[in-house]
Amino acid sequence: MTARGRFITLEGGEGAGKSTHARALAAWLRAMGRDPVLTREPGGTPHAEALRAMLLDGLVAPFGAEAEATVFAIARSDHMARIIRPALSEGRWVVCDRFIDSTRAYQGAAGVADETLLALERIAIGADRPDLTLVFDLPAAEGLARAARRNEGADRFEQDVLAVHEARRAAFLAIARSEPDRCVLIDATLPVAAVSGAVEAAVLARFGAEIEGRGG
Amino acid sequence: MTARGRFITLEGGEGAGKSTHARALAAWLRAMGRDPVLTREPGGTPHAEALRAMLLDGLVAPFGAEAEATVFAIARSDHMARIIRPALSEGRWVVCDRFIDSTRAYQGAAGVADETLLALERIAIGADRPDLTLVFDLPAAEGLARAARRNEGADRFEQDVLAVHEARRAAFLAIARSEPDRCVLIDATLPVAAVSGAVEAAVLARFGAEIEGRGG
Repeated sequence: MTARGRFITLEGGEGAGKSTHARALAAWLRAMGRDPVLTREPGGTPHAEALRAMLLDGLVAPFGAEAEATVFAIARSDHMARIIRPALSEGRWVVCDRFIDSTRAYQGAAGVADETLLALERIAIGADRPDLTLVFDLPAAEGLARAARRNEGADRFEQDVLAVHEARRAAFLAIARSEPDRCVLIDATLPVAAVSGAVEAAVLARFGAEIEGRGG
Repeated sequence: MTARGRFITLEGGEGAGKSTHARALAAWLRAMGRDPVLTREPGGTPHAEALRAMLLDGLVAPFGAEAEATVFAIARSDHMARIIRPALSEGRWVVCDRFIDSTRAYQGAAGVADETLLALERIAIGADRPDLTLVFDLPAAEGLARAARRNEGADRFEQDVLAVHEARRAAFLAIARSEPDRCVLIDATLPVAAVSGAVEAAVLARFGAEIEGRGG
């Protein structure tokens, strides 16, 4: 029987380097002999990518933060059912750029009640949770400046005012503090190589024996 | 200045002949010298068609009737903004297979509060309303038998039990009674040619001068 794969999520605000380090982590796992699935949210399936486009274009925003939280959860349920859960069952590791904590932080900061967010989470992913969540932390102003330098048009969530970005950062920090068994805080102000080192160290500290022994 | 076009919707339960008669009505308007837009809900734009697939596949159902009502409204807002409102502004007539009354009847029968449905409607379409709504009425059991003969797999809404279909029929009848200026009841148990005749008669009764005079 194949052991279940490990599920690692990268979380944090805009411009924190999550996408860069999700790719780097997947490459590193590949170098360690794994065959990881690299995916992202919102997205990861055709349905969920369609919802991503609507969310980031601001099509859902007029319906309010609760509607946005619901649409994120619908996308997540498809992603979970079609990509993440099957991959984990086959023993593959999954690296996901954003997951439940982004909904908790973004839609929580926008005023959606915790019980609503937890109810949506339960419908979307049942009892499954990431095995490890890397929370990329940096001052909101610095993250926004980095995101602006990427030079794409700002999406619906990047366009929010600084105070909203700061509330999201505080929410991510609170999640990391309240679930220390799942979450590791990563100082995203460090140079890229140092952040990569911190990511690899966190993964080795949690799953070292599995990775080095190629268990499962 | 071009006069605004007319917006005609066809409503009713499963198997009532709405799609058939939407096509026939568009063809008849074309024969009368109009250049109508024939469209449908949920759908009508790439985003809205993606949402249609998710709704009819049952991907949204686990999140509850309110989530379904919200997703219908999101699809509607895109359809309204990109297709219906621009066409009407250009003076074109729009024939739409299902619209707000389907959400009122289906999600209302599923327990979503009227104030929630009206709030979603307001966000999705503002103050715009169809100029004429043809409500196709037939016994729920007969409609379901017809839908089954189409021999496609039953979608998420067709799969509901007969009592739910009967509640939707009652809701459509209540809408027709409460908005007689907008709605005309069509007896969908009649043969196709008789139904077509009733549809054309209803359109002529409402807009005869415009159609015959080719006004606008």
